[in-house]
Amino acid sequence: MADDALVIFTPSGKRGRFAPGTPVLTAARQLGVDLDSVCGGRGICSKCQVTPGIGAFPKHGVTVAADALSPWNAVEQRYKDKRGMIDGRRLGCQAKIMGDVVIDVPPESQLHRQVVRKAASARAVAMDPATRLFYVEVAEPDMHEPSGDLERLAAALKDQWQIDTIEAGPGVLRKLQPVLRKGQWAVTVALFRDHHGGAARVLDVWPGLYEGALAGLAIDLGSTTIAAHLCDLRDGRVLASGGVMNPQIRFGEDLMSRVSYAMMNPGGDVEMTEAVRLSINALAQSVAAEAGVEPGAILETVVVCNPVMHHLFLGIDPVELGQAPFALATSSSLSLAAREVGLSALNPEARLYTLPCIAGHVGADAAAVALSEAPQLSDDLVLIVDVGTNAEILLGNKTRVLACSSPTGPAFEGAQISSGQRAAPGAIERIEIAPATKEPRFRVIGCDLWSDDPGFAEATAATGVTGICGSGIIEAVAEMRMAGIVDPSGLIGSAEQTGTARCEPEGRTHAYLIHDGSAQNGPRITVTQGDIRAIQLAKSALYAGARLLMDEMGVATVDRVVLAGAFGAHISAKHAMVLGMIPDCPLDKVTSAGNAAGTGARIALCNIAARAGIEAEVRRIHKVETAIEPRFQEHFVNASAIPNAVDAFPNLATVVSLPQVSHNTGGEGGGRRRRR
Amino acid sequence: MADDALVIFTPSGKRGRFAPGTPVLTAARQLGVDLDSVCGGRGICSKCQVTPGIGAFPKHGVTVAADALSPWNAVEQRYKDKRGMIDGRRLGCQAKIMGDVVIDVPPESQLHRQVVRKAASARAVAMDPATRLFYVEVAEPDMHEPSGDLERLAAALKDQWQIDTIEAGPGVLRKLQPVLRKGQWAVTVALFRDHHGGAARVLDVWPGLYEGALAGLAIDLGSTTIAAHLCDLRDGRVLASGGVMNPQIRFGEDLMSRVSYAMMNPGGDVEMTEAVRLSINALAQSVAAEAGVEPGAILETVVVCNPVMHHLFLGIDPVELGQAPFALATSSSLSLAAREVGLSALNPEARLYTLPCIAGHVGADAAAVALSEAPQLSDDLVLIVDVGTNAEILLGNKTRVLACSSPTGPAFEGAQISSGQRAAPGAIERIEIAPATKEPRFRVIGCDLWSDDPGFAEATAATGVTGICGSGIIEAVAEMRMAGIVDPSGLIGSAEQTGTARCEPEGRTHAYLIHDGSAQNGPRITVTQGDIRAIQLAKSALYAGARLLMDEMGVATVDRVVLAGAFGAHISAKHAMVLGMIPDCPLDKVTSAGNAAGTGARIALCNIAARAGIEAEVRRIHKVETAIEPRFQEHFVNASAIPNAVDAFPNLATVVSLPQVSHNTGGEGGGRRRRR
Repeated sequence: MADDALVIFTPSGKRGRFAPGTPVLTAARQLGVDLDSVCGGRGICSKCQVTPGIGAFPKHGVTVAADALSPWNAVEQRYKDKRGMIDGRRLGCQAKIMGDVVIDVPPESQLHRQVVRKAASARAVAMDPATRLFYVEVAEPDMHEPSGDLERLAAALKDQWQIDTIEAGPGVLRKLQPVLRKGQWAVTVALFRDHHGGAARVLDVWPGLYEGALAGLAIDLGSTTIAAHLCDLRDGRVLASGGVMNPQIRFGEDLMSRVSYAMMNPGGDVEMTEAVRLSINALAQSVAAEAGVEPGAILETVVVCNPVMHHLFLGIDPVELGQAPFALATSSSLSLAAREVGLSALNPEARLYTLPCIAGHVGADAAAVALSEAPQLSDDLVLIVDVGTNAEILLGNKTRVLACSSPTGPAFEGAQISSGQRAAPGAIERIEIAPATKEPRFRVIGCDLWSDDPGFAEATAATGVTGICGSGIIEAVAEMRMAGIVDPSGLIGSAEQTGTARCEPEGRTHAYLIHDGSAQNGPRITVTQGDIRAIQLAKSALYAGARLLMDEMGVATVDRVVLAGAFGAHISAKHAMVLGMIPDCPLDKVTSAGNAAGTGARIALCNIAARAGIEAEVRRIHKVETAIEPRFQEHFVNASAIPNAVDAFPNLATVVSLPQVSHNTGGEGGGRRRRR
Repeated sequence: MADDALVIFTPSGKRGRFAPGTPVLTAARQLGVDLDSVCGGRGICSKCQVTPGIGAFPKHGVTVAADALSPWNAVEQRYKDKRGMIDGRRLGCQAKIMGDVVIDVPPESQLHRQVVRKAASARAVAMDPATRLFYVEVAEPDMHEPSGDLERLAAALKDQWQIDTIEAGPGVLRKLQPVLRKGQWAVTVALFRDHHGGAARVLDVWPGLYEGALAGLAIDLGSTTIAAHLCDLRDGRVLASGGVMNPQIRFGEDLMSRVSYAMMNPGGDVEMTEAVRLSINALAQSVAAEAGVEPGAILETVVVCNPVMHHLFLGIDPVELGQAPFALATSSSLSLAAREVGLSALNPEARLYTLPCIAGHVGADAAAVALSEAPQLSDDLVLIVDVGTNAEILLGNKTRVLACSSPTGPAFEGAQISSGQRAAPGAIERIEIAPATKEPRFRVIGCDLWSDDPGFAEATAATGVTGICGSGIIEAVAEMRMAGIVDPSGLIGSAEQTGTARCEPEGRTHAYLIHDGSAQNGPRITVTQGDIRAIQLAKSALYAGARLLMDEMGVATVDRVVLAGAFGAHISAKHAMVLGMIPDCPLDKVTSAGNAAGTGARIALCNIAARAGIEAEVRRIHKVETAIEPRFQEHFVNASAIPNAVDAFPNLATVVSLPQVSHNTGGEGGGRRRRR
C-alpha cells in the first residue's frame, strides 16, 4: 500500500495526509476546508468544483505530478457536457487523491463565500445562512420494518449529512409523501437551524435535486417607509429591492401619534398591525415578482424596526412605549413562524427573525445598525447616526458603546415639508444656490443634468420636477443659509432683505421659490418658513441625541461620523454640518453607510452567527433614555440655530464661511419652538 | 444554637435534619417530598397544607412536642378566615420547624396525587402534567436598566422557581403587558415544558394568583365516534366527557372507503380534514360548557387515533395508507400548537400531543392502549383487544409485545346494522333469549328494568326503544346462537325451523324480531341475516388478528384477555366467546378495560413522563402487518362459524352448551364471504 499523500488546500492553507483513493471532498471535510456540496458527493450538484495545481509549489514545499488526482471520469464528463465546466476544474466528490497535491477552492465553491453588492449599500456579507438545502437519498418504506417517511428522511439526513434531529410541521408532512415518491426517494430539503439550538426544522422539500430559488427577505420597517431586499440565501446576492410608504402614516405621522391613536381608539393597534402586515405581504410579492422568484421560495425573513413598529408589527399594543418607563413587552430577539405574525405571502413554513431591541426607545433597527457598522470593533470614537423619523444614534469604540434614539419627526424623509415627497424620479435631490445672485440650480432623481444644463427640460419631460425629497430639503436649507437667504435663527428674509424676488411673502412669513413649473401645469416648488422650522426641530433633536451620548461618554468631539439611513447615503457632509445635524468633525471623517439598518437586516438574514453575535452585543450596549434626560431638552433648545449657536464648528469654518445676517423684524420668533 | 431537628414526612417516610426555623415547605423541597405550592411560599395559594403530628410516634422513634412547629401565624389566620382550613392543618410555607416533628402531607397537597375516577374507565392517573401554573412576583420596569417585561418575567421565574429559560409567542406577548400591570407585577403563568426538553413555553398569564380552571382535553378519535374527556390538569379529575359521531362517516363508513374517497375526489382529504376538525372544536366547546369551563382554559389536548384518522386529522392525505407498503408520513409523536391543526376552540396557545403510531395500520390508538394496559409489564401472557371499526390488538408480556390491527368494520359500533344505532338512551344494550320459547327480553340504555319487568313501558316512555347499540348486537347474535335461532354457519332459521313466529321471512332469508314498537309509532327492531353476516365478518377479522399474533408468538392459548374499546366495557365475556370474537380463555380471565385508548390519552395528558415512556415502548413493540400475511386470510376464512368451527373452546363449553342445528336449505350460503 502506498504512503499517504500530502494534500494542501488553498486559499485556506489547510493541509493533511490522506490514503490514496480518498475523494478530494472527503479530505476537505475532514480538514474543515470550506468546500460546498449540496448533493453530498453524488456528482450531480457541481458545487464542489476545485482547481488542482500541477508542477512545483515551492511555497508549500511540494511538487504535484500530473497523476496526483484520479483521471477525469464519466460523471465529470456528463456534468461538463450537460452544464459546462471551466477547463482545469474537477468535481471534488469525483477526483480522488493519488499523490501529493495542491488544490484550490475557487470562491464560488466556498460555502461561506463573500459577496459584494454593487448597489449603494454595497457590503460584503459572510454567508452562513440559517436555512440551507440538503440533497438526500431516502430509504424506501418496508412493510416488515414499518417506519414513517419522515423518520426515514431523518435517518438519511443523519447518515448522509450528520444532522442529528429534525422536525416538521403538518404542512411539510402533507407534502413529504408525494414529493418523496415523485423524486423516486431522492429529495432536496430546506433545513432551518435556530442559532439557539434544537432540532433542525424542515421548511420545504422538493423532488430530486432542487436548483430553483432559495430566498430570504430583509425588511427595514421604518415609521415612514418600508424597504425590503430579496436575497439569495445561497450566495447572498440581492435579487431585488423595493420600498413602500408605511400605511400607518394615516394613523399618525410620527411614532408618538401612532401610540396616541392606539390609546384613543379601541382596536386601533390591531388596525395598524393589520395595515403594516398587509403592506409587507404586498411588498414581498412585488420584490419576488421583480426578481422572477415565487413568493413561496422565500423561506426566511428578518425584520428590523424601532420599538413602536416592532410592537405594532408583532401585534402588541404599543401603549407602554408612549409613557415612562417605556417598558417593552420583550426586548429579546424573536424567532418564529412568519405566518404567526400574518406574513402569509411567503412560504407557509417561512421563519421570521427579529433583532433584539436595545431599550424602549432604541429598537431592533439600532441593533441592526450596530450589527452593520460594528462600533464595538472601532479603534477611534465613532458616532453613527441613522437618520429617519426616529433617529438611532450610537457612539462608541472598542471600550464602550452607547445608544439612544431621538424623535426627529418625518421632515428628513420629506414628510411635513410643503413640497416634500419621497425619493422618486422627478424629486429634487441636489441643490446649489449662488451666494451672489441667490439663484438656485438643482438636480432631480432620474437625471444626471443640472437644471441649468442644456437639455434638462427635455431630459426631465417624462417625470417633470415634482417636489423635494429628504436629502434635497437638507441641501436646500443649508444652501439657503450659506446664501444668506436664511439667517442663523432660521428666518427666511424678505425680497428686500435678501435682494431676490424668489423670496415671496407667504402669510406673515416668506418662502423661497426653487422652481416654478406652473407654466407646464407643474407645481411651484418653494421652501417655506414652516419647512425651515420642521427641519430645525428635526436637526435639533438629532444633534441633541448625539450630544447627550457625548456627555455620557465624557467627550467634546468625536473622531468620525457615519451617516446612515434609507437616504443617509445621499446627505452631503458639508450640508449636514452647515445645518448642525451632527457635531463638528473633520469633513473627510464624515462618511455614509447607506441603509445601515437594512444592511444589518441582510447580515442577520445571511449569517446565523451574526444573530447570536448581535444578541450578545446588544446586552453590552449602554442605553441612554433621551425622554427623561433634562440635558436632552437643554441641548435640543440650544441647537435651534443654523448652525447651532452654542457650538463651535471649527472644522466647518475651514470649508465654508457663513454670512452674518438677521432677518428678524419682530414678526416670527426665533425658532425656539419646543418639541411637542 | 440549638441542634438540628429531625423531620419525618408521611406518607413518603422521607426524613432529614434541619436547622430550627426552617419552613416546612423548604424542608419538603430539600428532601424531595411531594408537597404542592403554586405561590412559591408566599402564603396565598394554600396548596402546601400539612398536618403535623403531636405526641409519641414509636414507629418513627420520635416524640413530638406541642411546640415542634412555630406558632400559628397571622398569614395562616388570614387564609383560614378568608377561605377556611381544616383544623389541625398548617401552611407548610409558614410553619417553621422548631423541634423533632412528624408531618403528614394530605393527598390534596400532593403534587403528583393519584386520582381515581368513579366512571366506567376508572383509573388512577399519576399527575405530572406538561403544563403547570406558577405564581411569580415580577420586578417593575426601570428606565435606567431597560429590559422587556418578558425578560423580567423570565428572571422572576428563574429566581423564584428555578426555571431556566422561557419563550412566548406573539399572542402571549400581547397579553403580558396589561396583565402584569393589572396584577400589580404579580401574575400566574401557565408554563408548558416539552418532554424532549427546550425552553418552557408561556401558554397563558393571569393577574395575581389564578385559581380558575386549568384544563386538558383527551380525545379518542375513532373512525365512527369521537370521544373527549375534559380533565383538570391540576388533579386529573374528569370534569366532563362527551362524544359525537365522526362526521367523516358521510365520506365512507370504514377507513378504506375514506382513503378511496380521498383518492377518487381531488381535495377529498381536505374536506374530511375540515369536517373532523370542526367536530372536535364543537365537542371541545360542548364538554367545556358542560363542565362550566371556558374553552380558553383548555391549554393542552392529546389525540389518539388510528393511522388514517391521524393523517386526516393532521391534514395529510392518507392515500399511502391505502396501499402496500402502507407508509406513514410520520410515525413519531407530534407536539405542536393546537391551532396549527385548526383546533381554534381551545386557548389560542394550547398545545397538541399525538401519541406515536406503531405502524401503517397500527396507530396512536394502539399506542394509547399499550400505555393504558401496559402489556410490557404483565407477568402472564395478555391479549388486549380494542374493539372498534378498526380493532387494535396487542399480545405480550414482560418478554415481548406484538401488535397488529384488524379491519373489523363498523358493525361492532352498531353501524351497517339494520337496527343499529350509537349508544344512547333508548338503545338496546343487553338481551336474553329463552332457549325454550325463543322469546327475547332486553334492557335499554337509561333504564334499569328489563323489558318484561312491570313498569318498563312507562319507564322508557320518554325515549322509547329506538335500536340496538354495539354491545347489544353482540349479545343478540350470541343469544340467537345459544337459542338455536342461528346455526353455526350463521344462518337464521325460518319460523318452521325455529318454532317461533319471530323468525320472519325477509327476502330469501329471515330476520328475528326483537321488539315491535309499530303500535306506538316506534320501529320494528329485528336482527337480519345481513346483520349476522356483518357481525361474522367483524368477529372473524378480530379473531384472525388475535390468532396471527398468537402464531407469531408461538402460542396456542393466552393467559388472559382484556376487552377494551369505547363500548368494550359493555361486552360480556360469555357472549364474546360464543361469537368467537376472542380465542378460548377461562371466562374469569376475560376482563374489561373500558375505553383503554381514551384512558391512554388521559394518561398522556396528565403525565409528561408517560409520553417519553410510550414513545420508547412503541419502538420496542413488534409490528405484524395483517394485510400482507396469508395466514391472516386463512384464520379469517376459518373463523366464520359461530363459534369458529376450527377451534376448540373448552373453557366456553364449561359454561354454555350450544345447540347443534342447521338451517341451511340450499339458499343463502354458509357465510364464507371474503373480506372486501
